[in-house]
Amino acid sequence: MKARIIIFILSCFSAQFLMAQHPSLILTKAGVEQMRREGTKSPLFSASLNEVQKEVDEYIAKGIKVPVPKDLAGGYTHEQHKSNFLMLQKAGVLFQVTGNEDYARYIHETLKAYALLFPTFDRHPSERSYAPGKFFWQCLNDANWLVYVSQAYDCIYDWISEEERNALNSMLFRPMADFLSVETPQFFNRIHNHSTWANAAVGMIGLVMDDEKLVQRALYGLKSSDLKSTQVDNDGGSILQEGQEEAGFIAQIDFAFSPDGYFTEGPYYQRYAMYPFLIFAQALANKKPDLKIFEHRNGLLIKAVYALLYQTNSEGEFFPFNDAQKGMSVYSRELITAVSTAFHYGHKDEALLAIVVDQGKVSLDDAGLEAALALEKANVKPFVKPSIMFTDGPNGDEGGIGILRQYANKDELTLVMKYAKHGMGHGHFDQLSFLYYLNGDEIIQDYGAARWVNIEQKSGGGYLNENKTWAKQTVAHNTLVINNASQFGGNVTEADKYHGEPYLFNATDENIKVVSAKNNQVYKNTGLHRSMVIIKHPSFENPILLDLFRVTAKGQNNYDLPLLYQGQLMKTSFDFEVHESMEKLGNSDGYEHLWNEAEAKLTKGTSQMSWFSKNRFYTQSFVSTAKDKIIHARLGATDPEFNLRRDPILITRRTTTGNTLFASILEVHGAYSTVSEIATNTYSQIQQLEILRNDEQYSLVAFTHKNGGSWVFAISNNDNAAEAKHEVVQNGEKFAWKGSFHLFDQSSNQK
Amino acid sequence: MKARIIIFILSCFSAQFLMAQHPSLILTKAGVEQMRREGTKSPLFSASLNEVQKEVDEYIAKGIKVPVPKDLAGGYTHEQHKSNFLMLQKAGVLFQVTGNEDYARYIHETLKAYALLFPTFDRHPSERSYAPGKFFWQCLNDANWLVYVSQAYDCIYDWISEEERNALNSMLFRPMADFLSVETPQFFNRIHNHSTWANAAVGMIGLVMDDEKLVQRALYGLKSSDLKSTQVDNDGGSILQEGQEEAGFIAQIDFAFSPDGYFTEGPYYQRYAMYPFLIFAQALANKKPDLKIFEHRNGLLIKAVYALLYQTNSEGEFFPFNDAQKGMSVYSRELITAVSTAFHYGHKDEALLAIVVDQGKVSLDDAGLEAALALEKANVKPFVKPSIMFTDGPNGDEGGIGILRQYANKDELTLVMKYAKHGMGHGHFDQLSFLYYLNGDEIIQDYGAARWVNIEQKSGGGYLNENKTWAKQTVAHNTLVINNASQFGGNVTEADKYHGEPYLFNATDENIKVVSAKNNQVYKNTGLHRSMVIIKHPSFENPILLDLFRVTAKGQNNYDLPLLYQGQLMKTSFDFEVHESMEKLGNSDGYEHLWNEAEAKLTKGTSQMSWFSKNRFYTQSFVSTAKDKIIHARLGATDPEFNLRRDPILITRRTTTGNTLFASILEVHGAYSTVSEIATNTYSQIQQLEILRNDEQYSLVAFTHKNGGSWVFAISNNDNAAEAKHEVVQNGEKFAWKGSFHLFDQSSNQK
Ligand SMILES: [Ca+2]
Ligand SMILES: [Ca+2]
Ligand SMILES: [Ca+2]
Ligand SMILES: [Mg+2]
Ligand SMILES: [Mg+2]
Ligand SMILES: [Mg+2]
Ligand SMILES: [Mg+2]
Repeated sequence: MKARIIIFILSCFSAQFLMAQHPSLILTKAGVEQMRREGTKSPLFSASLNEVQKEVDEYIAKGIKVPVPKDLAGGYTHEQHKSNFLMLQKAGVLFQVTGNEDYARYIHETLKAYALLFPTFDRHPSERSYAPGKFFWQCLNDANWLVYVSQAYDCIYDWISEEERNALNSMLFRPMADFLSVETPQFFNRIHNHSTWANAAVGMIGLVMDDEKLVQRALYGLKSSDLKSTQVDNDGGSILQEGQEEAGFIAQIDFAFSPDGYFTEGPYYQRYAMYPFLIFAQALANKKPDLKIFEHRNGLLIKAVYALLYQTNSEGEFFPFNDAQKGMSVYSRELITAVSTAFHYGHKDEALLAIVVDQGKVSLDDAGLEAALALEKANVKPFVKPSIMFTDGPNGDEGGIGILRQYANKDELTLVMKYAKHGMGHGHFDQLSFLYYLNGDEIIQDYGAARWVNIEQKSGGGYLNENKTWAKQTVAHNTLVINNASQFGGNVTEADKYHGEPYLFNATDENIKVVSAKNNQVYKNTGLHRSMVIIKHPSFENPILLDLFRVTAKGQNNYDLPLLYQGQLMKTSFDFEVHESMEKLGNSDGYEHLWNEAEAKLTKGTSQMSWFSKNRFYTQSFVSTAKDKIIHARLGATDPEFNLRRDPILITRRTTTGNTLFASILEVHGAYSTVSEIATNTYSQIQQLEILRNDEQYSLVAFTHKNGGSWVFAISNNDNAAEAKHEVVQNGEKFAWKGSFHLFDQSSNQK
Repeated sequence: MKARIIIFILSCFSAQFLMAQHPSLILTKAGVEQMRREGTKSPLFSASLNEVQKEVDEYIAKGIKVPVPKDLAGGYTHEQHKSNFLMLQKAGVLFQVTGNEDYARYIHETLKAYALLFPTFDRHPSERSYAPGKFFWQCLNDANWLVYVSQAYDCIYDWISEEERNALNSMLFRPMADFLSVETPQFFNRIHNHSTWANAAVGMIGLVMDDEKLVQRALYGLKSSDLKSTQVDNDGGSILQEGQEEAGFIAQIDFAFSPDGYFTEGPYYQRYAMYPFLIFAQALANKKPDLKIFEHRNGLLIKAVYALLYQTNSEGEFFPFNDAQKGMSVYSRELITAVSTAFHYGHKDEALLAIVVDQGKVSLDDAGLEAALALEKANVKPFVKPSIMFTDGPNGDEGGIGILRQYANKDELTLVMKYAKHGMGHGHFDQLSFLYYLNGDEIIQDYGAARWVNIEQKSGGGYLNENKTWAKQTVAHNTLVINNASQFGGNVTEADKYHGEPYLFNATDENIKVVSAKNNQVYKNTGLHRSMVIIKHPSFENPILLDLFRVTAKGQNNYDLPLLYQGQLMKTSFDFEVHESMEKLGNSDGYEHLWNEAEAKLTKGTSQMSWFSKNRFYTQSFVSTAKDKIIHARLGATDPEFNLRRDPILITRRTTTGNTLFASILEVHGAYSTVSEIATNTYSQIQQLEILRNDEQYSLVAFTHKNGGSWVFAISNNDNAAEAKHEVVQNGEKFAWKGSFHLFDQSSNQK
């Protein structure tokens, strides 16, 4: 009897002790104390706090609204539930930092409304998702909800009574955690950004409620499930990857990233996924420090933040390859959390503070406070993004992307070439495609996704039909289309099996930066090898981009090489015949969306086309044959809902037998002002571009400048060893070099 | 003999005395002293001086180049001569302010090279101009040259010897002045911006050389000339206007502007013309103060500067109606001079200083110095542009333009409706068209000119064919096209005879601003009456634009009402049938440049179309009949040189007999962020729009808000008296009001 009482007292005490730990998920008692004490010392932290307070006060003033779920994204009930979870999280912080109980009351009342609503229906009435949600059309949004609401709940956990806690736990939070996991295994147990959210949601509410069973489920996945390996999601992606045994949060870290922190779905989805990765990791660092989650896999999560930052243009916008809405950037709420987290839990890297300054706000947590305070003492220097290669695949051996950056005058040129994995359901058939930027502006674009996220008029804010029929297709990318068919026949399952092969990535010579990769799987019996070289030479106003796209094939093929340039055509060296009426370029693989505006027959030699965009001139010079054709296409055919932009596309078309090489040089030149009306350097400086040799061993191209300058670029096509020595005799002239490639300046030794 | 000597001495002395006055044209001895003394007190003046010094030093370092004329605009010789005159003027200022004789030497050497070149050939070899120039393809550019070079010459006039002066005067400057006047009367003696430059050029060099004959010629024109009234310029504009008797600079001031300072060619050309107006006026104010040139015609020249400033959008860009390249703005060199001049010679209006701050530089002369120094003392407030009407025609009775500005949240909405004179050779067939801006962004655009000024690739930088075949045509504007033909049959001579009639301009009620005008000449036997109303009401997120376009006609006509919206179509209340192949919309009057992308049959009632542009949503709601059709057209057909932008155009098409009314409401609503991915107010708030009455006496339209709000707008169509009383009974309801128009709020008294 006595023993029982003692045990009872102890367990009470222990429970009380644990209770007293709240908040302990993202905010901590000590952290909150420091915020109150030192937050005002940082103008940035104070401003961030004031902004949130203003926003939440206005929201609370409108009254609590927890509507019965009905709408898709963009619709009222969806947007209301979304606003609710974002505001609840912020209200939690405000309650802790200000001590104002109005915030706590608002949270508690809202949670009670959710607890009352939860048991009244099964799933959201819409049937568009492979995993329909509760408050939202898809579980994904419900997981978002729980990740944010867990944080709010943690903040008031000690403020409400035990009875109130028990009620919420049993009526809302435990059922919701089960709903998102055991009741929807196809959502919970994948290696996929959806599951990352699910894992974090279940884990975070588990940590708040001290429910170790939920935490273990979140960390290591469902032990048994009724998953079938043939199940696919809405985008056609597999639920279970071939041979996948692990699941849960730790497995996400282990399998969703390459060792460099590259995320196979691309930066747009990585940005989205980083929030649950980092916020649950923060919670684990606070509540389960022994896990050393931020050190897991050589500090993978911190590396992943840098990988994201490096996958942006000069304006901080993510490269929009794979399904991605353009304009998403380091200014997103996810990256505001990510950068502070990387500073606090990473290496206290002051370089990150430059981004914090640009962002103009910090997350209201220990990490945000530390970054804000560090800023007051630091001598902030610009955040320099290097030329860098990222590997893809958990082991880093499944292709990747190469990013070359070059500077000239006040400009930054950024090239991205993609030879990574397909990227599952959100992947595009874009092997060996590239993007090219002048500062924040696209010179050569990736179309991005055909989607207006959260804009209800456009198919409920979801992916449009044209995302599949146009945006994912190969012709929507700056890479070769063979016989008018997309890579892998447009088959995701097939595409997911392969990846490109890195051949070269070399940015050690400041004046000649190279990325080169191969892919022999995208088209049957066809080898593709693309080498892109940024050359900086004083003869040219700006660095030039040399592109050698080599095809090894047998038999006759039709090759289309699209160039999604941005701007208005200025002048061409060939004569376009414009059409009196416009027809579609084809009936499938994206061609059905292209109007044939104009065509030209090319001649043997160097062809040129110039365009103008945002007060700069651009010229592509390329080697053409007398059998080549060029088509000026315009996007927008077969577009009954006006879902597509009317972008221009230049397509070089070549029908030939056997191997071939597409060689071109892209120049950025000159400038124009509509205010001074002064135009400078409106013409290309390239005189000629010529292929000297192209076979399995070597490609050699020669190009000349109008000022008489002359160069030969040579690359070995089958030996990428840095120490290998090469020697080629061409037209009686000897070219000898060490390493895979070399640029020979012929200007001086011309005969 | 003695007397002769005395006279000789006196005249020497007098000549010497006059000599000693240089510089005295734009710079003055006293002004230069002040610049040296006080210039450093103004960071803006110092920065402007340093910028010019850096620019001129770099230019001089490249060596003097005075090539034999050959090229058109954009070509080497053209651009070199243009750079020369701009740099010479600046070098003159630098010599005076810094005292560094290198600048004087540079000027003198360059002028000697010009003096040697001048007599070696007749006119520029190209034959594109009605008045071929000397160093340039058209006299206009030569006049530019002389206006700038006169200033440089004035600055070194005392520094070179009398012999050197005599040589330059007799070999270069007097011949050039004659060349631009007596030898090219069709260029010198018009009322036209070309002649303004010619007058200023001849007058300014006359003032420098103290050649009163030239000055009188400049001020009052050629006394006798061989002009024929049938001569026309390159653009089809008349050389002599019907009944014109005056010529010369004073006549330009008297006839080129309306009494408000509105310039009939529009702001783009006014900006261009203002420089010679203001710079010659400055010279006259310095050398011939008795002329009181800045007080002439009630201070017309200063009014004209304000008129220019008011004809800009929120970013200071000029409304691009008539031939105008978009992007020209208050940041142009002409406006930098103009604003300082208006400050110094006008009313020392501190409001102008806000523009000086935006411009970030001042002209290096007395006016610029005064503005810069004033800035140091002033409490600079934003420059507020009012809702304002400008009359056209020398007497202010030939139509005009109405500008309505309305503010909402942080935005400025700017509406411009045009019912001015045609504007001669650079006019467009755009009677009763409008432009609409949200801040600096076009909601509804005027296409502007089809031209790339100074970009040689595009037809030598001159007007493109498409300027005539597209940009000037009525279908390229937001106004009615009847029976597929442009206004006045596209005939400039005919169009120049007429103008629109102002009916109402009322911006006194902050919540209901109206511009209304008529034109019964553009189409035979047809009355056009357009009323545009910006309504601000708390029910609407932003002010709405009500447009009532009334047609009085007999017989059956086809009406096309184009809407040159900017952005991407979001959603329509009707179902567009998109075409499988695209055909041109017609064969003439601009229709040959339009592709028929999609068509829809409308139904009786309220039709709606929404679009998206730069993160904002727009909806036009309009009254449709069951016989109406709508066409989604795309610019770019019949465009062999890719000279046209691929802009979208919505065309409402109605074939009907007798009178008709096009009624619409345009809303700006909501916002979207690609960073937060949050979309707000993506839907229109208009429930219904209905025509209650439309006849010669009254138009009444009713519209309702989705929140139940309901309004009736009533306007008298034939009585614009402010005191007139009106009473209309409609469906048993009485509407009574005073003044021409009224907005009845029916929300409260609904039954
Ligand atoms: Ca950008
Ligand atoms: Ca052609
Ligand atoms: Ca603008
Ligand atoms: Mg893509
Ligand atoms: Mg892909
Ligand atoms: Mg126009
Ligand atoms: Mg006009």
